[in-house]
Amino acid sequence: MNLVVKFGGTSVGSLERIESAAEKVIQKVKQGYKVVVVSSAMAGETDRLINLAKQIDPFPPERELDMLISTGEQQAIALFAITLNKMGYPAKSLCGWQVPIITDGVHTKARVVKVGVQRIKNLLNEGYIPVVAGFQGVTEDWEITTLGRGGSDLSAVVLAHALGADCEIYTDVEGVFTADPRIVPNAKKISRISYEEMLEMASLGAKVMQARSIEFAMKYNVRIHVRSSFSDNDGTWILPEEEVMEKVAVRAITLDTKESRITVVRVPDKPGIAYSIFKALGDAHIVVDMIVQNVSHQGYTDMSFTVNKTDAKIAEDIVRKVASEIGAQEVVRDDNVAKISVVGIGMKSSYGTAAKMFEVLYRNNINIMAISTSEIKISCLIDSKYGELALRELHSAFIEEDQDVVKY
Amino acid sequence: MNLVVKFGGTSVGSLERIESAAEKVIQKVKQGYKVVVVSSAMAGETDRLINLAKQIDPFPPERELDMLISTGEQQAIALFAITLNKMGYPAKSLCGWQVPIITDGVHTKARVVKVGVQRIKNLLNEGYIPVVAGFQGVTEDWEITTLGRGGSDLSAVVLAHALGADCEIYTDVEGVFTADPRIVPNAKKISRISYEEMLEMASLGAKVMQARSIEFAMKYNVRIHVRSSFSDNDGTWILPEEEVMEKVAVRAITLDTKESRITVVRVPDKPGIAYSIFKALGDAHIVVDMIVQNVSHQGYTDMSFTVNKTDAKIAEDIVRKVASEIGAQEVVRDDNVAKISVVGIGMKSSYGTAAKMFEVLYRNNINIMAISTSEIKISCLIDSKYGELALRELHSAFIEEDQDVVKY
Repeated sequence: MNLVVKFGGTSVGSLERIESAAEKVIQKVKQGYKVVVVSSAMAGETDRLINLAKQIDPFPPERELDMLISTGEQQAIALFAITLNKMGYPAKSLCGWQVPIITDGVHTKARVVKVGVQRIKNLLNEGYIPVVAGFQGVTEDWEITTLGRGGSDLSAVVLAHALGADCEIYTDVEGVFTADPRIVPNAKKISRISYEEMLEMASLGAKVMQARSIEFAMKYNVRIHVRSSFSDNDGTWILPEEEVMEKVAVRAITLDTKESRITVVRVPDKPGIAYSIFKALGDAHIVVDMIVQNVSHQGYTDMSFTVNKTDAKIAEDIVRKVASEIGAQEVVRDDNVAKISVVGIGMKSSYGTAAKMFEVLYRNNINIMAISTSEIKISCLIDSKYGELALRELHSAFIEEDQDVVKY
Repeated sequence: MNLVVKFGGTSVGSLERIESAAEKVIQKVKQGYKVVVVSSAMAGETDRLINLAKQIDPFPPERELDMLISTGEQQAIALFAITLNKMGYPAKSLCGWQVPIITDGVHTKARVVKVGVQRIKNLLNEGYIPVVAGFQGVTEDWEITTLGRGGSDLSAVVLAHALGADCEIYTDVEGVFTADPRIVPNAKKISRISYEEMLEMASLGAKVMQARSIEFAMKYNVRIHVRSSFSDNDGTWILPEEEVMEKVAVRAITLDTKESRITVVRVPDKPGIAYSIFKALGDAHIVVDMIVQNVSHQGYTDMSFTVNKTDAKIAEDIVRKVASEIGAQEVVRDDNVAKISVVGIGMKSSYGTAAKMFEVLYRNNINIMAISTSEIKISCLIDSKYGELALRELHSAFIEEDQDVVKY
C-alpha cells in the first residue's frame, strides 16, 4: 500500500534530524508500505533566502523569488535521499518539475493544476523511495512556482490523492490538541477530527497544517495523520466527518492574539458608509476578520472590525483618511484584544453551546466586544489580558467536564 | 550582436559583488550587445554543500550530489536577476534544464550533448537579459547533471557557440600572464593567446579556465575574453592560432609544484615491467604525468614518474607492492619536485628553445630530473627549492629579453 509521509522544516532542520526522519520512513517501509517522502526546506533556510532577496529589493520579482526559494527544498530532498541510501534504502530525490507537479503561473502562491505520478510509480516499482520536494511546482511553460507558505502540506496531500494513499504529516507537535497545551495543562490530544473542524482551527490560528491543504484533503477525502517527528505516539487523524466516531459539541478551544481592533466612532448611519471603509481596505489587500456595527443612535453608529496586527497600522491610517471624508468623529485602534473560539462539528446538531460560552465568560467577568459564528464555531473578541483565563475556563467547562459529548 | 558573459564564484561572492557584476552587464547592454549572463555559485557555496553531503556519506550517490550542488548556481542566478531588475534592466533566470542544456547521464562530470537556445532567443527578443545557471545540465530523462569543477566556463562557451556570440569570462585575475605575477614581478599580461597555448597552460596548472571549455572553444572557434570583474581593463583574448597576431616562441612560463616523483630503483629490464606498474596505477584511477626510464645497465634500469601529490602516497603503496613482485630493489618517493615549463605556439616553427631552456637551468646550476615535451611545450622536472628561481630566470631569458619574437 502506498503511503505519503511529509516532514516539515524542523523535522529536517539538521543532518541529525534528517537521520531521525529517515528512520521513521524505514519503519514504514518495514511495515510493508511503499513510501513516498515529501520534505520541506531545512528550518530557517527559506527565510534566509527571502532575506537575501529583500536586501537587494524589498519587492523582488516573484518569479525570481520562486527560483530562489525552491532551492531550499531541493537541498533538503538531496540530503534526505543521501541519508536513506547511506542507511541501505535506495532513494531518489525529485524536484517539483521532475514529478511533475503542474501549477498555474501565479508565482509564490500557485495552485496545483495536475500531477503526473508515472515517474513516482516507476521508482516505487524499481524499489526506490521517491523523495519529493514539497512547496514547489512547475507551470506548463517550465517556470518554477511555489505554493505559498506551508505549501509542502499541499504537495503531500495532492500526491497522496494522486497515489490513492494516506498521508502522514510529521511535525514538531504531537498532534492537534483541545487547546494550546502551553496555556492549558489539561489539554488533550484529539485522536480524530473532521476536515471542517481542522479548517476552522487553521483559520483561527492553529498552525498544525496549511488551510489550503486541508481544503484539498476535504474535497478529495484524503486521510491525514498529523504526528510528531520526535516520538512514536499516534497523533491526530484528520478525516471525513462520517469517520470521526465521537462527535462532540466542542472539539477544541482556540485563542488568537494576532488581531487588532479598529473602531470608527460616531459614523453617520447612512447607506454606503461600510462600503467606503471596507472598499479602501480591500484595495490595500488587507483582510478584515470580525465586523461589528452597533445599532444607530440619532443617526450615528459605531463600527468595529479586526485585522491582523501586522496590518493594523496601515489599516488605521487608511480608515482615518476615509473617516474624515465620511464625517466620522474619530478612529481608535486597540491592540489588546484576543479572539477566543469554540469549535466543534457537533454544534450543528446540539443546542446551547453559545449560551454556555457566554455564561462562562460572564461568570468570569469578561466582557465580549464582538461575536462571530459559523455552523461549527463561535468566536468572541475579548480584552487580551483575559485571553488565557478564558481559554482555561472554557476548556474546563466544555472539554474537561465532558458534559456535552453527543454520541451517535 | 549577442554576447555571453560569465561570472565566476568570487565575482558573485556577495550581494555587493553581484551588483558590480550586474553593472558590467549593463555596460555591455549600453554598448548595444544582447547579453546572456552565465553565473557560477556564490564562492564557497558548492564546497559547503559537498561538505554537508560528505558528513552523511563520504561517497554520496553522484545523482543526489548533482541534485544538491546545482542549487548553488540556481540561487546565484535568481539573486543576479533580482539585482538586474532592481537596476532597471528586465532579466529572467534560467536553470540548466530550462534552457535546456542537454547532457549525457554521467553525474558530476557530464558532457554536453546538445543545447536548445530558442527560449534564450525569445527572452532576448522580448528585451530580457537571460541569466543562466552555469555548471548544470539535464539529461533526456529529466535528471539534473553537473559538468565537473569549473563547468560554468563550459556552459558559457557552449552557449556562446550556440548563439554565435563571443564569450567574456569575468574572473578574479586581470587575464593570463606570462608567468605567475606573485613570483615574477615582471610578468606581463598576455593580450592574445591561442587555444593550444591556453590548453597547455591549463594542464600545467594555470587555473584561469577549465581545460574542457578551452577544448570546446578550440573545436568550435569560440572567441573568449578572460578579464577581471574588479577593473575595466582589457584582459586576455583566447583565439584561433591565426588570429593571434604576434607569434612568439615562448608565450609563458609555468611552475607546477603539485606533483611528486616516484622512482622504482633497479628494475629488471625486461618486457612487461612498465605495463605491470602503470596497469596497477591505472586500475586505481591514478593519472601519471611524466615518465622517465633510464638506459639499462647490466639488465637493470630505473624508472621514474610523477603523479599528483594528493595521489602520491597511494601510488607509492601500489608501486611498492608491484616492485616486490617484479623484483625491483626499492621504491623512493620525492615530494620536493617542481615542473617548470615553457609554452609557445611559435615553438612549432622556431628552433633552439629547448637548448636555451637547458642552458638557463645549467647556468643557474639547476639539475634536470626529467624532461617531457609537446609540439608547443617543454617541461623539466627540477628540485622544488629551485622552482621560483628557475621561473624568474626563464621568464627573464625568454620573455623580458624578447629575443625570440618570431613575427609573421
